[in-house]
Amino acid sequence: MSLSSFENDNEYTQEVEIEGHLIDSMILTRVLDTIMDHEGDFEILEFTMGKRKTDHSHVRLLVKGKTQRHLDNMLRELFREGAVIPEGNEARLVPAPEDMVLPDGFYSTTNHSTSIFVRGRWVDVESLMMDKQIIVEPDKPRAYCKPIRLVKKGDLIVVGEAGIKVKPPARPREGPAIFEFMTSKASSEKPSASIVRRIAMELDKAKKSGRKIVVVAGPAVVHTGASPHLAEMIRLGYVDALLSGNALAVHDVEYALYGTSLGMNLETGSLTKGERNHMAAINEVSKAGSLKAMVDKGLLRKGIFYECIASSIPFSLAGSIRDDGPIPDVITDSVEAQREYARLLRDADIVLMLASTLHSIAVGNMLPSTVKVVFVDINPAVITKLSDRGTAHAVGIVTDVGPFLPLLVEELRHLRERGESPESS
Amino acid sequence: MSLSSFENDNEYTQEVEIEGHLIDSMILTRVLDTIMDHEGDFEILEFTMGKRKTDHSHVRLLVKGKTQRHLDNMLRELFREGAVIPEGNEARLVPAPEDMVLPDGFYSTTNHSTSIFVRGRWVDVESLMMDKQIIVEPDKPRAYCKPIRLVKKGDLIVVGEAGIKVKPPARPREGPAIFEFMTSKASSEKPSASIVRRIAMELDKAKKSGRKIVVVAGPAVVHTGASPHLAEMIRLGYVDALLSGNALAVHDVEYALYGTSLGMNLETGSLTKGERNHMAAINEVSKAGSLKAMVDKGLLRKGIFYECIASSIPFSLAGSIRDDGPIPDVITDSVEAQREYARLLRDADIVLMLASTLHSIAVGNMLPSTVKVVFVDINPAVITKLSDRGTAHAVGIVTDVGPFLPLLVEELRHLRERGESPESS
Amino acid sequence: MSLSSFENDNEYTQEVEIEGHLIDSMILTRVLDTIMDHEGDFEILEFTMGKRKTDHSHVRLLVKGKTQRHLDNMLRELFREGAVIPEGNEARLVPAPEDMVLPDGFYSTTNHSTSIFVRGRWVDVESLMMDKQIIVEPDKPRAYCKPIRLVKKGDLIVVGEAGIKVKPPARPREGPAIFEFMTSKASSEKPSASIVRRIAMELDKAKKSGRKIVVVAGPAVVHTGASPHLAEMIRLGYVDALLSGNALAVHDVEYALYGTSLGMNLETGSLTKGERNHMAAINEVSKAGSLKAMVDKGLLRKGIFYECIASSIPFSLAGSIRDDGPIPDVITDSVEAQREYARLLRDADIVLMLASTLHSIAVGNMLPSTVKVVFVDINPAVITKLSDRGTAHAVGIVTDVGPFLPLLVEELRHLRERGESPESS
Amino acid sequence: MSLSSFENDNEYTQEVEIEGHLIDSMILTRVLDTIMDHEGDFEILEFTMGKRKTDHSHVRLLVKGKTQRHLDNMLRELFREGAVIPEGNEARLVPAPEDMVLPDGFYSTTNHSTSIFVRGRWVDVESLMMDKQIIVEPDKPRAYCKPIRLVKKGDLIVVGEAGIKVKPPARPREGPAIFEFMTSKASSEKPSASIVRRIAMELDKAKKSGRKIVVVAGPAVVHTGASPHLAEMIRLGYVDALLSGNALAVHDVEYALYGTSLGMNLETGSLTKGERNHMAAINEVSKAGSLKAMVDKGLLRKGIFYECIASSIPFSLAGSIRDDGPIPDVITDSVEAQREYARLLRDADIVLMLASTLHSIAVGNMLPSTVKVVFVDINPAVITKLSDRGTAHAVGIVTDVGPFLPLLVEELRHLRERGESPESS
Repeated sequence: MSLSSFENDNEYTQEVEIEGHLIDSMILTRVLDTIMDHEGDFEILEFTMGKRKTDHSHVRLLVKGKTQRHLDNMLRELFREGAVIPEGNEARLVPAPEDMVLPDGFYSTTNHSTSIFVRGRWVDVESLMMDKQIIVEPDKPRAYCKPIRLVKKGDLIVVGEAGIKVKPPARPREGPAIFEFMTSKASSEKPSASIVRRIAMELDKAKKSGRKIVVVAGPAVVHTGASPHLAEMIRLGYVDALLSGNALAVHDVEYALYGTSLGMNLETGSLTKGERNHMAAINEVSKAGSLKAMVDKGLLRKGIFYECIASSIPFSLAGSIRDDGPIPDVITDSVEAQREYARLLRDADIVLMLASTLHSIAVGNMLPSTVKVVFVDINPAVITKLSDRGTAHAVGIVTDVGPFLPLLVEELRHLRERGESPESS
Repeated sequence: MSLSSFENDNEYTQEVEIEGHLIDSMILTRVLDTIMDHEGDFEILEFTMGKRKTDHSHVRLLVKGKTQRHLDNMLRELFREGAVIPEGNEARLVPAPEDMVLPDGFYSTTNHSTSIFVRGRWVDVESLMMDKQIIVEPDKPRAYCKPIRLVKKGDLIVVGEAGIKVKPPARPREGPAIFEFMTSKASSEKPSASIVRRIAMELDKAKKSGRKIVVVAGPAVVHTGASPHLAEMIRLGYVDALLSGNALAVHDVEYALYGTSLGMNLETGSLTKGERNHMAAINEVSKAGSLKAMVDKGLLRKGIFYECIASSIPFSLAGSIRDDGPIPDVITDSVEAQREYARLLRDADIVLMLASTLHSIAVGNMLPSTVKVVFVDINPAVITKLSDRGTAHAVGIVTDVGPFLPLLVEELRHLRERGESPESS
Repeated sequence: MSLSSFENDNEYTQEVEIEGHLIDSMILTRVLDTIMDHEGDFEILEFTMGKRKTDHSHVRLLVKGKTQRHLDNMLRELFREGAVIPEGNEARLVPAPEDMVLPDGFYSTTNHSTSIFVRGRWVDVESLMMDKQIIVEPDKPRAYCKPIRLVKKGDLIVVGEAGIKVKPPARPREGPAIFEFMTSKASSEKPSASIVRRIAMELDKAKKSGRKIVVVAGPAVVHTGASPHLAEMIRLGYVDALLSGNALAVHDVEYALYGTSLGMNLETGSLTKGERNHMAAINEVSKAGSLKAMVDKGLLRKGIFYECIASSIPFSLAGSIRDDGPIPDVITDSVEAQREYARLLRDADIVLMLASTLHSIAVGNMLPSTVKVVFVDINPAVITKLSDRGTAHAVGIVTDVGPFLPLLVEELRHLRERGESPESS
Repeated sequence: MSLSSFENDNEYTQEVEIEGHLIDSMILTRVLDTIMDHEGDFEILEFTMGKRKTDHSHVRLLVKGKTQRHLDNMLRELFREGAVIPEGNEARLVPAPEDMVLPDGFYSTTNHSTSIFVRGRWVDVESLMMDKQIIVEPDKPRAYCKPIRLVKKGDLIVVGEAGIKVKPPARPREGPAIFEFMTSKASSEKPSASIVRRIAMELDKAKKSGRKIVVVAGPAVVHTGASPHLAEMIRLGYVDALLSGNALAVHDVEYALYGTSLGMNLETGSLTKGERNHMAAINEVSKAGSLKAMVDKGLLRKGIFYECIASSIPFSLAGSIRDDGPIPDVITDSVEAQREYARLLRDADIVLMLASTLHSIAVGNMLPSTVKVVFVDINPAVITKLSDRGTAHAVGIVTDVGPFLPLLVEELRHLRERGESPESS
């Protein structure tokens, strides 16, 4: 298969080379990841694999974009991952137009070792720092980074992507390293609105294909005033099973009966000290005999568990040493509760974990690595703990479930109005 | 002044007594606080103050409510704080109607030492735990707590508030205690919607009375997609000065020019690796000379700083060692920046601190204790740090600024539509 | 009883006055607290209590110190709390000796409204900020704060404590405030070594008086390598009961049998991927039948539970939905486990909670407010949650249990060697 | 090169196969990583690389161990990563000896899709959960997971590693995924003592090879009582430059002069309210003119900065808007401070960041990706933020710097006593 055969289907291609300890430094992995993130295509032209761990490998790769701009965007990133264009090009140098002003299109550095092809040879960039531009003195030749505030008019600045070689670090060759080779992209500073929209789309897609969504929820859903939104989500058909404990149910009943959560009025925020209403809610469930009995007798008319019972959505409440009461619905034996959780999790496609450390970790331990998981918690330590459990397809969102759920349900409502409703599918 | 004179103006009164180390145990403080929280009234009928630190004090207090129900609500809490009705009443005992079911109106315990007046004498409650009910065996007599799951039909349960004496703990009498006397009511588990509404009302009230609102904001406002909402808040007239640093301005310009924040598209959430746009935004401000010059030249047409400049709202950007660039508007000298911050903070009535540790702590140190402060941060450690700075009138909200600001601005919009607009006042 | 009678026993006294909304602003509470923190003494000379909530109150107080220096230290703080010396004194003004240099003994401000007595009248301090000094221009007269960097040679600076009146803010008079009246002194930035020493002393004192110490511990005690130290603490006689769950026991057995925790070798830190040893430890306990049976058969010869069993210290393991296994010792029914926890907590004097959210909150709910509680957790949100449960005598330490326990046990060892051993008391 | 040629040098080898989307699923990367973590060796026998992104690849690999046990340990993990032994083996089945008891050597599951080779064909394991064992009913044939508590005597349990095929999940083939492909191994639950020892060894190795160690430190080093330990570390020769801000220096001087930090006595923990000593420390440095002048005049005789000045270790203090004072040594201009930081960081080999968010992020942005970084902070959010900056060789430790530094310095003291001292090398 020759290079030219591809040029027929797609004119926007560029051959690049990668060399080094390809596999273990993950350069190749990251290069291919980047292409797929961009929905680009590639063909491996040549792959010389080092046989032993000290051998170098070498790959020639044809990168294929949909448009020239698409290709250029991909290439800009691939160059930063360590790919280079086979034939050397001179780096393009443009003088700074003013003090503290850079020419348009200036090259912005990574923090990896970088060389510049100037006057026919590779020059290492000195004083390398991330997010800086490169100043070149071609006569010496010398290249170095400078903060923008120190740039002088006439300084020669590298522009564009040609003639630049980046060398990402390799992992240590021997033994387990105290210095981990970090490649995490996780961060809590993500745009909330777009994240919420994408999760809503995943949930909607799952429902429309008849797949199963399980929600694990903690009592903060009620404390933060989000319970009417979880109730609506159930009513809209986006919940196939609910896993929780005593506290969620007691708070939900307390809110349904008295408008308070742990004695705090969720409308006005005024605090009734003491937890009288909390204990009274437990007693009301005990008097009726179960949550379902309360609904059947017309005593419980709204809220999360009302909606579950009204729509015959199964739920399981696992007991814990921390419970007040607990209400009769709670499975106080932990082995029995695990069995019931496992039953409701069978064939789950997406599990949404809302502000519940104990139950979320329990569920995380029970899931095969193919299930998609969304964890929402305000505490980043919980997110880290859940991520550590080996879940492969997961998104952790460090946010407050209180304002998160209303936004999610609003998106779901829009999606449902627009498309076919999930129930009818 | 006699007790009867009050009964004429208001029939809903009840005389209560408090005794013990009143001042230093804060019992009296908490009792009066509770009355004011409920918007009730009181009169001190008698106050015998112990002269030395080992002396007991004694207070007789007339509590006044607006209705019987209002009075009863107050009293229920006052009894939990240690107030008692002067004349002893027998505690009311009602048998449990079923196993695991309590009689209506059952008394729910605090965790403070508690006695019950049974058959003419005070009996200490054994196995005391919070949020339990009290079982009495009047013949022995004995009183103790039991979890609801262990209650048997016919157990005699204390009902109502009469004949119950609660004794909150006193602080240690000597020396600084390793065991602090905790009275914190702070918690992150508060209903988001009601908190947001109340903050909006405070901001609106301040504006309508012509008082000054200062906002301190960190770059997470842009990362989390909330910058259009802060921009709108400025446009609506709710911001009189903005204090921040280089990062907020750079991110705001990057978002206005390219729709990204640190290379991430805030609409789609897709990540352009590298921080090319971030550095290009800095260069654009450098080229224009300042943010104001960008606005004047029509290069910056939306965002937080566009709105400030369009409405002539002053802002100050303090430099830090962490800055990329920085842009020319940044005051790089920290002493100079402090002077400018202090100037903009003069006569502030409310300061709203949004996801900015460095600048919020700096501002916290500059404020007199009379200024009202709202801190919003997802990290509870930041909230604790800010609370420790001696601010007296403050509300700390552990939440994500991303979904918080849209909700706040929606409330402000409603308030502004309903009432007189803030600008016109 | 006259003022002079006190002067005979103790010459170091000073009369001070406090005025305002004394009770509800907590000024009086804080003044008396400060005196007791310093182990000083006081006598109330006069107390005029406002009868209604809008009335002012007035107190004259005689503060008594052990030495002049002791008295002065107390007074310096009392002045900052709002106490004033009855007769007005002129504030003492000293010129700054150099630019950016203050005279010795300069007055350092609070953030509360402050007035200075200059040329026979009270002048309000402008531009008030915390931790600044006050510059006075006596001719106008004017007083204001300035940062030290801006002080000029010859500026008149207030020195000492005379002629200064501080007015701490009062809490709002009506209704529940969105702006809470914060008085928290809690902080995680405390000197570790001194905190550890003081906790050790409290534990030692409890043991030497025959009082009961209960430990609640999570599996992080083993993960962080601290289990040999908890084992030693048991051996030294400082633990009367241990409350935990399945995970602590399984990790403790895994470490005792294989030297690993979740497959990680705790000596070398090298990670055996997979959790083979963890499951094998569970199987070994199952084979023996119980932890005690393992000890009796000589299969478990060290660790936390070995020491409990060897010293007949009772323990209780509560099951949870999260458990692997669990081992036969675990009480899987949560109501049963609560009953057993409550039994072991009876008459506890100090409860030490080590890195265990679930069990610590459960225990916190079960304790009367008179029990002293120490919580150690690296997550400040857990500390806040535990503090919110109404425990009155508590110290929360935001630290890593891994290095904390060795330091605590070292202190206990020293105390035990020095004094009478706890067991023999 | 034939398989047999290796058997001569090393008898402990095993051929394994991997198949699938090898590069982008990172299976091959993880397999080779695992071998290198174990200090094993390998040879690629055959590599058929898929040319396009939908093609499968196939690798035959010879794994080489030092001993049979070493090889077996590696293989156990490689099987969990997806490697299989080319020729199919029947899985070994052993009956459970008792109810709730497993046979020794039982296979413990991952959460990845798993198949068992039973009676000549592959059977998928149902109800798959992590850390469980596999029960086989060979007659049907059927295989499934069961919790140990539900195992019955005689159940056939899979033992050993033969006849088991694990299939780790692949990353999605198209587009950026909302569900990230998580591979993080980071966790805060690591054994403290072993981590400390290994960091000490890295620091010692760096010093003994004449490489440069830079410390970035925040004021919590002093607050938590750890400053004498940082001072000793400087004295022992393990610090080549110190980067910080005003607060560290002021707290260090306050502690050296008065024994307090922010008014708290670090020996006794008793709190002098107000921050008089803090401001007095600033004034003392201002009076002398600089920290060095204080040392030269004999006014500063101990502490972190005393040791730096006594040993001519350079330091740089960057100003910030938050500073009290600041002292004359602080570079108040942030661009100037960045230049000075960059100068001191040149040629750094290891950077140790101690409880300083602002300065650590600033330094993180300045470092090439080849520098090794250790971050120590009690707040996991700071660790995450630092990890996100693209540092390649880093270890983040979520711990309290207060007890951490004494342990680190104790290890350094031992290493220095044992080996050649770092200065003399």
